[in-house]
Amino acid sequence: MSPDEFRRHGHAVVEWIARYYERLETFPVLSPAQPGEIRSGLPAHPPEQGEGFDAVLADLDAKILPGVTHWQHPSFFAYFPANASGPAILGDLLASGLGVQGMLWATSPAATELETLTLDWLAELLDLPARFRSDGPGGGVIQHTASDATLVALLAALHRASGGTTEHRGVRTGQYTVYTSHQTHSSVEKACRIAGLGAEALRKIETDEATLAARPDHLARLIEADRAYGATPALVVASVGTTGTGAVDPVAEFARISHDAGAWLHVDAAWAGVASVAPEFRWLNDGLELADSYATNPHKWLLTNFDCDAFYVADRAPLLGALSILPEYLRNAATESGAVIDYRDWHVPLGRRFRALKLWAVLRYYGAEGLRAHVRTHVALAQEFAALVEADERFEIVAPHPLALVTFRLREGDEATLALMHRVNASGRAYLTHTTVNGRAALRLAIGAPSTELRHVEQIWELLSS
Amino acid sequence: MSPDEFRRHGHAVVEWIARYYERLETFPVLSPAQPGEIRSGLPAHPPEQGEGFDAVLADLDAKILPGVTHWQHPSFFAYFPANASGPAILGDLLASGLGVQGMLWATSPAATELETLTLDWLAELLDLPARFRSDGPGGGVIQHTASDATLVALLAALHRASGGTTEHRGVRTGQYTVYTSHQTHSSVEKACRIAGLGAEALRKIETDEATLAARPDHLARLIEADRAYGATPALVVASVGTTGTGAVDPVAEFARISHDAGAWLHVDAAWAGVASVAPEFRWLNDGLELADSYATNPHKWLLTNFDCDAFYVADRAPLLGALSILPEYLRNAATESGAVIDYRDWHVPLGRRFRALKLWAVLRYYGAEGLRAHVRTHVALAQEFAALVEADERFEIVAPHPLALVTFRLREGDEATLALMHRVNASGRAYLTHTTVNGRAALRLAIGAPSTELRHVEQIWELLSS
Repeated sequence: MSPDEFRRHGHAVVEWIARYYERLETFPVLSPAQPGEIRSGLPAHPPEQGEGFDAVLADLDAKILPGVTHWQHPSFFAYFPANASGPAILGDLLASGLGVQGMLWATSPAATELETLTLDWLAELLDLPARFRSDGPGGGVIQHTASDATLVALLAALHRASGGTTEHRGVRTGQYTVYTSHQTHSSVEKACRIAGLGAEALRKIETDEATLAARPDHLARLIEADRAYGATPALVVASVGTTGTGAVDPVAEFARISHDAGAWLHVDAAWAGVASVAPEFRWLNDGLELADSYATNPHKWLLTNFDCDAFYVADRAPLLGALSILPEYLRNAATESGAVIDYRDWHVPLGRRFRALKLWAVLRYYGAEGLRAHVRTHVALAQEFAALVEADERFEIVAPHPLALVTFRLREGDEATLALMHRVNASGRAYLTHTTVNGRAALRLAIGAPSTELRHVEQIWELLSS
Repeated sequence: MSPDEFRRHGHAVVEWIARYYERLETFPVLSPAQPGEIRSGLPAHPPEQGEGFDAVLADLDAKILPGVTHWQHPSFFAYFPANASGPAILGDLLASGLGVQGMLWATSPAATELETLTLDWLAELLDLPARFRSDGPGGGVIQHTASDATLVALLAALHRASGGTTEHRGVRTGQYTVYTSHQTHSSVEKACRIAGLGAEALRKIETDEATLAARPDHLARLIEADRAYGATPALVVASVGTTGTGAVDPVAEFARISHDAGAWLHVDAAWAGVASVAPEFRWLNDGLELADSYATNPHKWLLTNFDCDAFYVADRAPLLGALSILPEYLRNAATESGAVIDYRDWHVPLGRRFRALKLWAVLRYYGAEGLRAHVRTHVALAQEFAALVEADERFEIVAPHPLALVTFRLREGDEATLALMHRVNASGRAYLTHTTVNGRAALRLAIGAPSTELRHVEQIWELLSS
């Protein structure tokens, strides 16, 4: 495609996206497509001759959109948000256009240096402890997702716990143990499986019935029991904003217990962490100055489109010890000088996109003020919704809701609660998902789309309560 | 950013990218930036108030581009290409604009179904064995990189070799072994480390001095020795196009040996695999009908910008066995019906971009004809270059070069060879990298930028030979 053709089709795509946002509310939030329906509307075989790009755009409207669940729709309240914004979309477009690959500093110095700088900026905006900035032994890197962050935290933890032997000799069944809240994301179990520990290495910490936060006394007991059997506690994962209910584990107490046991403390704040851009939510950072690593996802709730997980370590040496390999074809003077960061050693993949561009564009376009306003708006809307739920005696709120997630149910029971969810979702006018709290079904309303306004919150309440 | 602002800035970014490609040859290929130089030109702290997007674009030119090594430059001959194209860039832009997250079929059915379809299309275009298509027990998925593909192949292999126990109980030091050519990409060692086997589980197969392909007789001997010690051979990785020299391992013989030993055969054709879009390169697929998994990267040499690795399995059950976890908050009717694919179970991350859009756009825009022409052009240029090298007695070619990579050196020796590379790269007029072949330094000329023409090849030869 020549630059001139790119201009023509590029302008058409920009117009398509602008129009998409203008007509977003006309689509059902949840796609009504049945399994196989989208595929069956498309040709079974690839074309022999090339087609114009116009044909791709036409099919996008006619054949793809009916199968899209609209994550940017203002009435998308499911899961956690994956919010996009203009500057992020355009920053990512610039990364695609440049098409550079930042596996090493040497393969495009700006890709590495802008990433290091931007993650330092983000640490400052969130008021993270100084140990996570890149001017000391620590620093930040963009991972694809929080699952990847948890995995590499585990690998660094195993390196440290083993005195630098696991990357050579591997792990031994039953030797290393991992701890996390039973409310925690499945990513911790997945990391245990991937890293060769197996799911049986994972201990699930009991939670407090009211706060749903993991209990430090139970963590301490679990660790004590494992050590008595000769196991080595390698990693504790504290959640700041669990997936189910947004519960916040007591990080400072976890840190003390982890430190005493010689375990690595990783704090997974995938969704909630970015809220600390506003000073009134800085309690989310309590205890973080004692953590070994920390992850939060600008791609969830900070206007930076997927994928962009910000992962920080207090000491990069164990991470590099676990992952660094230098074959001949990657040797270069800059790497050997030790003066640069080579991000390929900070994660699973070798190659990497210039993803810092989109985060940089977001931080500059909105500034600290704009980001604070963004988070505050969603928290305020969630509190409005919670007040509506509280005022209706048929419903009950089942978890604390200091941020933009409200977890609630019908007092009538699980069946009625889930039936209500299905009815609302089938209407196409809003979309929310469920979880289990203390053994009973509950609905989750997560507010995060940039275009969500009070009227959308009132509308879903009308759907839920009528 | 409102839709109208998005229009304005979006058109500016499209224009910026078109202009970037128009002036690409005016930039030095390899950035001359020194460590820290790019960062020091940017503000140390994030802005308090938002800035306009125009400021981002202005800084891109003034402050970022000097630190960019231009992977799309027609004289970029380093590493392997990571080639971009208009339809891929725009397909990816549409994915960013839609901002959907395809972790489950249910979270956006079209994202999953288009991916399955597009990978079936690609399998057809490359004439891959039917077992890798999704209408049987196998199928394809987009991974970030070939490193990710190797890792999940290892996890599936461990699941199968252990009778489905590793994901529960983990691995045991020394129990499982992995085999690959000593010419192979560092990703195999990295996967062994990540999966808890440790680098010591990896056996490096000796290569033939002339072809640089791994020797089946040595693989068989290594496996026999390990089995005699009670180890379980879990995974063999055959390379179709090694990173160093593009060597092609004898896949059919590897498959026979792997099968006899009960080991999983993964074929890593990250760079070379896509060449089989042209019938004359279908020998690259020899033996594939016996492999358990296969990976090739459209983001290297098939015009689809990073990241897009196409990973195929003949049987998806071991992969799902290794990676599938279903927490309550992800339960849904479609998943429970068993009628759909949930790609979150096929890789490390949970969340995922709608990356099929860019591959779909590329396959449609170019068609089979266009893709064949693309690959053929690069192979022909590489053969022109090889002829120039061969005709100059100061140089020698050190590896077979049936595709678009030529590996060569100065007969004078390593020092002269590496000095020559540094001189050419420092000129800014071309960029190539090195490797080691049979213990001696060699230079690699990899042709893959869509805009590379004969004059660029002639120019780097002039730089090398004058």
